[in-house]
Amino acid sequence: MDTFETHLQLFNSHLENYKADVNLRSPRELYEPEHYILSLGGKRVRPLLALISCDLFGKDPSLALNSALCVELFHNFSLIHDDILDEAPLRRNNPTVHIKWNTNIAILSGDVMLVKAFEVLKNYEAKEFSQLFSIFSKTSIEVCEGQQLDMNFESASGGENSVTVDDYIQMITKKTAVLLGCSLQMGAVNAGASSVDQEHIYQFGKHLGIAFQLLDDTLDAYSTDEKSFGKQIGGDIIANKKTFLVLKTLELANVEQAKKLNELMSKNKGDNVKKIQSVLSIFNELGVKALCEAEADKHTKIAIDHLMKVNADRTKLKALENFSLALLKRNI
Amino acid sequence: MDTFETHLQLFNSHLENYKADVNLRSPRELYEPEHYILSLGGKRVRPLLALISCDLFGKDPSLALNSALCVELFHNFSLIHDDILDEAPLRRNNPTVHIKWNTNIAILSGDVMLVKAFEVLKNYEAKEFSQLFSIFSKTSIEVCEGQQLDMNFESASGGENSVTVDDYIQMITKKTAVLLGCSLQMGAVNAGASSVDQEHIYQFGKHLGIAFQLLDDTLDAYSTDEKSFGKQIGGDIIANKKTFLVLKTLELANVEQAKKLNELMSKNKGDNVKKIQSVLSIFNELGVKALCEAEADKHTKIAIDHLMKVNADRTKLKALENFSLALLKRNI
Repeated sequence: MDTFETHLQLFNSHLENYKADVNLRSPRELYEPEHYILSLGGKRVRPLLALISCDLFGKDPSLALNSALCVELFHNFSLIHDDILDEAPLRRNNPTVHIKWNTNIAILSGDVMLVKAFEVLKNYEAKEFSQLFSIFSKTSIEVCEGQQLDMNFESASGGENSVTVDDYIQMITKKTAVLLGCSLQMGAVNAGASSVDQEHIYQFGKHLGIAFQLLDDTLDAYSTDEKSFGKQIGGDIIANKKTFLVLKTLELANVEQAKKLNELMSKNKGDNVKKIQSVLSIFNELGVKALCEAEADKHTKIAIDHLMKVNADRTKLKALENFSLALLKRNI
Repeated sequence: MDTFETHLQLFNSHLENYKADVNLRSPRELYEPEHYILSLGGKRVRPLLALISCDLFGKDPSLALNSALCVELFHNFSLIHDDILDEAPLRRNNPTVHIKWNTNIAILSGDVMLVKAFEVLKNYEAKEFSQLFSIFSKTSIEVCEGQQLDMNFESASGGENSVTVDDYIQMITKKTAVLLGCSLQMGAVNAGASSVDQEHIYQFGKHLGIAFQLLDDTLDAYSTDEKSFGKQIGGDIIANKKTFLVLKTLELANVEQAKKLNELMSKNKGDNVKKIQSVLSIFNELGVKALCEAEADKHTKIAIDHLMKVNADRTKLKALENFSLALLKRNI
């Protein structure tokens, strides 16, 4: 399988140059957190998608390097601010910025990274810049809206304001999926792709992102391999997260099952192992794991359908399809 | 004196249209704070400067309405985030966003406003947009750097890392002054002004901003009219702020005076009236009020020199000079 190793090297080298420039800026308190979070690693999926997309449309992937940098800077800005919102102490096994420094520095260094994400696009000439800007600013607003919807979900109770499965799909679409679509579309713009092709590659990325997040929900509950999953298994259940599994359960449950799940999810302390087992047994009674996987499959199929409508080299399309399926299977 | 009342009405009407659009967006939790802070009022100095500048160069000021909106949105974004950093409970006699809602919502709604500030510039065609973007992104990064410098100053102690008067001028230049220059330059770009004229009008705004902030320091300590000043008199002294007055005092003081001022400034509680009197008496011993006013005068003169080099209608230049002097005298 093509892992696009050369694309990754190309991006990493560009990122290192950018980080060297970050090191020269002052005040240091503002720029050290930026350098730090960019050094924590990660799969660099978003920048990779920008380069792959540009290459797919027959152009030198290095044309998309600043689009790639833009989406990676934005992603890391959102991690800094989201970690404040979530009160997360760790990010990739290292202290989060607001813990290592403080919340004020995390807010302000995030703000600067958000502006820098836009600013690197200025390396393109006016017309291309203008096109890239429109896609990216629309997306960045959607990501903020998705994060707000996620916060709303966590505080929503049952009754009239209860969260539905459709609300959940809308939330993960904005919070996670659109940035994947945006990364691919920006690479397509760099390659001069048609607006029809841009739309197909965007929809491919968006639905891939939805599928990825849905599978993340099942893996969080059912994975047996914590290392390859990369997060604590059962973490969503412990944190009472309103995932697809929970919302689908509440949709299908009888009065007794719903009452039991709501009771389990109102607890914040106690025996987590027992809580996970009890929640899983309700999930299993209603078969929501299979329903979640079916929903993910549906979005994967929509994604691939869009990809196959893209007017590009078949071998390259197949390589991107394989890459995306490997991503869903957590083989990347 | 020309108060540019029609320019203000023009902008306010544009802002109301924008606010109506904000009211249509969801999730509401994200957009209500934006609508709220834009409704708290203020002198709208920055947008006014953008319109005045466009008019100065002989073009319809309405051409600069989206530049004006951009800088006002950015200014209000920075107020939301700065109020979190400063733990400020009140903004224009109303609860700050993080108090009225919460810190998470204040962070996220600020982020969206920052993106929207950039996005409204997309109403200009590609080349003009690209020029405006460059000026504005450079400035917005400088404002964040200025805010970080301000935070550093507050935590800096004496000794090797002590803050100098020059550091202070650099800080207020970035935190406050460059956005005034930027507003004027953007209006000049909208009018198609030459790059030489753009630079003069930018420098005019920047030095005007420095003078304004320096006079703010003296008014905070010496004003006898709290209502026209709009803030608590002595507020900087109570909060132990390292203003020009303090830094100049420490530069000129003998050992005894410096020790006394440092002692007074290490206190956070006690008799504020007595503290203000004691600090003022040291200021008066060294005559730093006059030195601060002289420094402000210096920057006012530099500002006016730049303004008078601008290639524009003399009557309009004079009107802008009068407006800026009225601004310094707090008559606007």
